[in-house]
Amino acid sequence: MVKGNLLVVTAPSGAGKTTLVAALLAADSQVQLSISFTTRPPREGEINGKDYHFVDRAEFERMIAAGELLEFAEVYGNYYGTSQLWINEVMANGRDILLEIDCQGAEQVRRLFPEAIGIFILPPCLETLESRLRGRGKDSDEVIARRLAVAKEEVNHVDEFDFVIVNEHIDDAVRDMIAVVRAQRLTLARQSERHTALISSLKG
Amino acid sequence: MVKGNLLVVTAPSGAGKTTLVAALLAADSQVQLSISFTTRPPREGEINGKDYHFVDRAEFERMIAAGELLEFAEVYGNYYGTSQLWINEVMANGRDILLEIDCQGAEQVRRLFPEAIGIFILPPCLETLESRLRGRGKDSDEVIARRLAVAKEEVNHVDEFDFVIVNEHIDDAVRDMIAVVRAQRLTLARQSERHTALISSLKG
Repeated sequence: MVKGNLLVVTAPSGAGKTTLVAALLAADSQVQLSISFTTRPPREGEINGKDYHFVDRAEFERMIAAGELLEFAEVYGNYYGTSQLWINEVMANGRDILLEIDCQGAEQVRRLFPEAIGIFILPPCLETLESRLRGRGKDSDEVIARRLAVAKEEVNHVDEFDFVIVNEHIDDAVRDMIAVVRAQRLTLARQSERHTALISSLKG
Repeated sequence: MVKGNLLVVTAPSGAGKTTLVAALLAADSQVQLSISFTTRPPREGEINGKDYHFVDRAEFERMIAAGELLEFAEVYGNYYGTSQLWINEVMANGRDILLEIDCQGAEQVRRLFPEAIGIFILPPCLETLESRLRGRGKDSDEVIARRLAVAKEEVNHVDEFDFVIVNEHIDDAVRDMIAVVRAQRLTLARQSERHTALISSLKG
């Protein structure tokens, strides 16, 4: 079984990342969204192993102590985190894992998985970004200015990624995502692993 | 205008390269097949600048002397060659150039264009390769054995390429080609060039 790829997808909020990722997942069944572990109790309708991996506090703290987590945070008394162990297992089964994280998280991931493929998504222009961040017009100018500052700080890190997709026309951007993910399975390294026997049978 | 990519496509004969390249060209109008220069007179129906660039001997020899050719050969008294100058012009206009060459040619191209993207196409198994090389069964075993030896010698160089496509199901292989070519336009380097103004307007 050839190892899957680790895909790290980052974008300033307002770039349309969620829609793009959903379209990729619908189009390519080899890609699996990373599922976080949490100590928060499941809500109505949430499925263990699909929405989250629900674990108790003792188990989560064991995972922290064992160094199994790629990153974690405590929010309102509940832990949330990504299991490095789980990611490695899924990838070992030949699936690609997609992690939706901010550029700080992306940097942590690159340190542990240097072969991770970074994809950065940009909005088509500043005006689009601003209007998306403005949302329904219910927030104060101060709140919006803060959101814009955070978004811009994300874009400062674009140079740390391998691929850049500009989400101007959603259909084109989806095709871009699909192409990047497909092409990364066709690199010499991946194909040499996948087709070792074929290649050696064809060599002179 | 952002520079196009130089795509070098190589395969042992019998891998189905010609069909794949034709499908890519039909699907992606940004890709332009490299057109050779020749001193051979045009045949009925051949169009200058489409089938070949037809030039006279004096002009071809001027191109050789000026170092404008990436590679050239003389076959039955006629010159054939690829103009480096022409390739640079087409790429400068933002189009991708596709060169169909053998691994020796690919090596020469990499020396002059280190950023060229190498794509190697493999047949799905040795039996398919052998039966395709056998063709219509009119050739002697010796001729077929020689063809197979040449094909295997090509495969020896697979490790010099960036991407490997196994042509088992033609539809999948065509999608692979299209994905690789599309993804290569989305690398950080290309997108930073293409969207310089956008990126600087979005930075904090």
